[in-house]
Amino acid sequence: MFELKERDGLARICELKTRHGAVTTPALLPVVNPNQLTITPKEMQDEFGVDMVITNSYIIWNDERLRLRAVESGVHSLLEYDGSVMTDSGTFQDHVYGDVEVDFREIVEFQRDIGSDIGTILDVFSEPDFTEDEARAAVDETLLRARGSAQLKGDMFLAGTVQGGTYANLRERCAMELSRMNFDMHPIGGVVPLLQDYRFSDVVRVVMASKQHLPPSRPVHLFGAGHPLVFPIAVLMGCDLFDSASYAKYAREERMMFPTGTRFLSGLRDLACGCPACTSTSIEELRAADPEERVKTIARHNLHVSVQELKNVRNAIHEGSIWELVERRARAHPALLEALKALEENTEYLERFEPVSRRGAFFYCGPESYDRPAVKRYRDRFFSRYRRPATKALVGFEEGKKPYSRSYAREIAAISESVDASFIVASFFGPVPIELDEMYPIAQSVLPDTLDEDVVRRMRDVMERHAHGHGYPIAAMWDGVETLEFLKDVARRRRSIDMDMLRCRAVLDMQFGRGAANILDGKEVEFVKSRNTGKIRNVIIDGRHALSMRAYDGRFTLKIEGARLLSEALPPPRMRVVVEDEPAQFAAKGANVFAKFVSECDPDIRPGDDVIVTNTKEDIAAVGRALMNREEMLAFERGIAVRVKQAVE
Amino acid sequence: MFELKERDGLARICELKTRHGAVTTPALLPVVNPNQLTITPKEMQDEFGVDMVITNSYIIWNDERLRLRAVESGVHSLLEYDGSVMTDSGTFQDHVYGDVEVDFREIVEFQRDIGSDIGTILDVFSEPDFTEDEARAAVDETLLRARGSAQLKGDMFLAGTVQGGTYANLRERCAMELSRMNFDMHPIGGVVPLLQDYRFSDVVRVVMASKQHLPPSRPVHLFGAGHPLVFPIAVLMGCDLFDSASYAKYAREERMMFPTGTRFLSGLRDLACGCPACTSTSIEELRAADPEERVKTIARHNLHVSVQELKNVRNAIHEGSIWELVERRARAHPALLEALKALEENTEYLERFEPVSRRGAFFYCGPESYDRPAVKRYRDRFFSRYRRPATKALVGFEEGKKPYSRSYAREIAAISESVDASFIVASFFGPVPIELDEMYPIAQSVLPDTLDEDVVRRMRDVMERHAHGHGYPIAAMWDGVETLEFLKDVARRRRSIDMDMLRCRAVLDMQFGRGAANILDGKEVEFVKSRNTGKIRNVIIDGRHALSMRAYDGRFTLKIEGARLLSEALPPPRMRVVVEDEPAQFAAKGANVFAKFVSECDPDIRPGDDVIVTNTKEDIAAVGRALMNREEMLAFERGIAVRVKQAVE
Repeated sequence: MFELKERDGLARICELKTRHGAVTTPALLPVVNPNQLTITPKEMQDEFGVDMVITNSYIIWNDERLRLRAVESGVHSLLEYDGSVMTDSGTFQDHVYGDVEVDFREIVEFQRDIGSDIGTILDVFSEPDFTEDEARAAVDETLLRARGSAQLKGDMFLAGTVQGGTYANLRERCAMELSRMNFDMHPIGGVVPLLQDYRFSDVVRVVMASKQHLPPSRPVHLFGAGHPLVFPIAVLMGCDLFDSASYAKYAREERMMFPTGTRFLSGLRDLACGCPACTSTSIEELRAADPEERVKTIARHNLHVSVQELKNVRNAIHEGSIWELVERRARAHPALLEALKALEENTEYLERFEPVSRRGAFFYCGPESYDRPAVKRYRDRFFSRYRRPATKALVGFEEGKKPYSRSYAREIAAISESVDASFIVASFFGPVPIELDEMYPIAQSVLPDTLDEDVVRRMRDVMERHAHGHGYPIAAMWDGVETLEFLKDVARRRRSIDMDMLRCRAVLDMQFGRGAANILDGKEVEFVKSRNTGKIRNVIIDGRHALSMRAYDGRFTLKIEGARLLSEALPPPRMRVVVEDEPAQFAAKGANVFAKFVSECDPDIRPGDDVIVTNTKEDIAAVGRALMNREEMLAFERGIAVRVKQAVE
Repeated sequence: MFELKERDGLARICELKTRHGAVTTPALLPVVNPNQLTITPKEMQDEFGVDMVITNSYIIWNDERLRLRAVESGVHSLLEYDGSVMTDSGTFQDHVYGDVEVDFREIVEFQRDIGSDIGTILDVFSEPDFTEDEARAAVDETLLRARGSAQLKGDMFLAGTVQGGTYANLRERCAMELSRMNFDMHPIGGVVPLLQDYRFSDVVRVVMASKQHLPPSRPVHLFGAGHPLVFPIAVLMGCDLFDSASYAKYAREERMMFPTGTRFLSGLRDLACGCPACTSTSIEELRAADPEERVKTIARHNLHVSVQELKNVRNAIHEGSIWELVERRARAHPALLEALKALEENTEYLERFEPVSRRGAFFYCGPESYDRPAVKRYRDRFFSRYRRPATKALVGFEEGKKPYSRSYAREIAAISESVDASFIVASFFGPVPIELDEMYPIAQSVLPDTLDEDVVRRMRDVMERHAHGHGYPIAAMWDGVETLEFLKDVARRRRSIDMDMLRCRAVLDMQFGRGAANILDGKEVEFVKSRNTGKIRNVIIDGRHALSMRAYDGRFTLKIEGARLLSEALPPPRMRVVVEDEPAQFAAKGANVFAKFVSECDPDIRPGDDVIVTNTKEDIAAVGRALMNREEMLAFERGIAVRVKQAVE
């Protein structure tokens, strides 16, 4: 029912298929109140392209007239809508108005019986001010009801809501237990009061504690989140669905939503919005309109802006710039900036889902950029995977000098030339040996000349750790890509170091893990280079084409020959995706590897990695590009795990 | 012809009136190439609300057919447009294609004769790679031509372009000399190559060097700037007009403009834009459309987005949040972040135009927020205007403690209570005595709990300077508004300090300058307080209502009685706006003060200040709110300088 299509870390574009069609996520489910249709579901479909709405089964159940109609002709007919319909259960009503008079089993059966595409359990709302004991009780009761509800769902998809207040341990436990049950989706509940109070860092803690313990193959729904302000960061954390009554609620207060916040109509000079609702009127007309029409226009604006921001988010996933989008949007409110900082605690987890490279550049947005998974990964891999070449490695470090200075780079280069040494440059990402300068993200980064002080200090710390670890001083210098270009020029003019060989070895180790460069030992290695750029194109080992270097990210594309050599140098499970034997035969003929057939996978494989596809007997079937990490390959029932690039047969 | 309507620092909303109607600035003038009408001027008016376009008089002059038609029936008829038309002179063509074969006088006369609303001199384009001598020669020749051209303009408005390459001294000289000539507008020229190369910090240096030496009463046009990416920061620097051929040029390359950058149509997953051009199609349709239609749709999108971003900028000026907008947008590209940092050199100049408060909150967006003029002003005024009250002033400082900790605030408060001392709290803005906590921007700020390290270090430096200057240690603590609220509570419960009196004195000195609080000396002072909030509403001095305190910014509104007292305590010109005697009589009857009648003004008056209006004999006529600073009052020929709130008669 749920298939991964594109991704940027945990942020992902998926297809969710219900009995009423396919929905592209991340998606916003507008809340439809059957008693108060500011915008009808039909209009939502036609004007906004909304493929799924959410309505409240408790409100329907609780109103005899609505209940009878729903039971007789179904919820789709009640709403006059033929897209997908999700139903909520009354939990939120219980939170707002107190006791809801319905049995948890009855409301699930009711949702099933009225033909809801996705029903929701009647979980217990855990308030942010709950003590740990109260929150634990809410979780226990939620889990009890979840277990009972899962048996009743029939053909309906069922959503099992994660509760636990602001207690990470309770969220974790709740998520873990729910993952073992037969659910199709997991809302994260109890966050509305946090959102209302702009407690976004608490939202981050709650979502991350939950998300990490839910199966990656089930959509995550951030219950009650309907403001475009939070969409980017929520999607970054792996949320797939949102729902919103806000577009209508805000409209009734004459408040207009924007991706950077909310404004009262009265405070605006101009509508300053190009959406169809705003371009159909002027601010003067809107102010003079009759209240009902005004509310409807503002509701339409709010929904347009929300739907658009999710398209914007999907574009960012597509081009691999979700971090940039989130860091930009975080400036909309200091509480969002806090939330971004709170996310830093999860860098290790986030790194597991972070693609190894992207086509677009890495844009620096502020001190927070230093905590992106791609930066941490570069540093970690440098320290654990990079092996210093035999040539004397670097050279020079001037105490008290600011860590980036082109003139200093020139001095170092001059010394370096005379002593036959290799360079290591202090960069934003960490120490960069000159032979790694073309590998993502080094050359693909766009940085300002002057970095924030926090970042410079942290850069220095890393460099000093490195210098200390290697027992030689470091040239503390950094001036963005230009310095690298300069040093590269110097390196090119030198004969004594075989830069191609250095680069090939360094990239092999960095990309596939320490030891990968051993495949070159004692072999005859030939480099085919681009006539235009002089860059390595292909690596021929003992006469066979083993590797190709990609121009856009300076990483290797693996050929079957390369996979053979690598599989000798690196013991299983390294860089392997193990596929059941029958599907492996198809892969060996060039078919892509579907997640459902993956039986094991190297936990160090990251999305975008070039991997070796084998059968369970360790025979190589193919090489290709991983679209998922291990957790995902083992969890997903649908979708491609490895896009096969070359097959043995 | 040019009137200030609303402002936020140098950023301003003005009305520019030509013979063909009024144009609200900041405005984008789409470039119309009479040979290639991607979008016709008529469409620009109808679909985009464009009130002024720019076309190139040299292209018309150079084409016999166009020239004859223009001379016969005028440029408006040629373009089939009845809005305002500005014409360019061929300078840019000279820059791109080399020698332009027209005499500088002839092209000005030609523009005048074809009925251009605003013509432009044929200045000499100073390239960014010019040596200082070359740039100086370009400036000399530009000034020579400017002098000659100004005599020929007739009824036409004439734009005198500032040149000087990247040399601030040359830009300054050029701007100064041009200001003395009879021009109506000043383009800043030679910036297109800088914009194309993303050299935005150079653009900042060039614009600021020019702007500071141009009369504030003449519109400034950033020649060739047409990407929404640069609108916010350019407007912040006081640019009023932009022109753009980019919307069409980019469209021909299938590039779509957004406020955060440019994207190739091919790189987008979805249009993710709600503009009328994008909502009239889908990405699939657009890709499949015939090339001409596709280019037109993208051009329309580009123009919509550009026009919208300027509306957005005008909304920000209206609500006083231009800094927030600029700091947010600066994350779109590291080069813009650099530009924002380059702007810090001009904080002193910017402060002269910065309003004293605003209705919205001060939002922290990152380390750069520390360099906003409002922050510098608070610090400067605290150090130069605030006088420590007689009660023992503060108390405690813990070395090495992080400078914000609520528990520490509690400790300090406890000590403080027992020793009858006043508090000074280390804040983002500088040292805050508790009695200034309600004055803008202290209580009106929204800050994250965790500030960037750069900022914390700079805060500490300021606090230590203060502690040192006063010979007592400082409680280095800060936890945003909450701590202030907490300390205020403690203060409220204490009887020995008269907090109202403390506050009244401190705000008087901070708002009107040191010595203003002397008006209370030896007087009977009574406070009328709000029944709801307990805050000071009115200050009655010797039985007369002299001051009212505004709830939203904690500053005083001056009454005539207050003005009388202040004028005794503060010698002229302090807080005075001196008006010619006849208009002063009208002001004394309650009429607003127009800029053209202002003969002198305290250079320390800032927009939003409560000021005393006098005649040239120092008789008080009225009190009111200044909308301009001194430079502006003396320069503007139109518009209100002081909105009179109370008059003597």
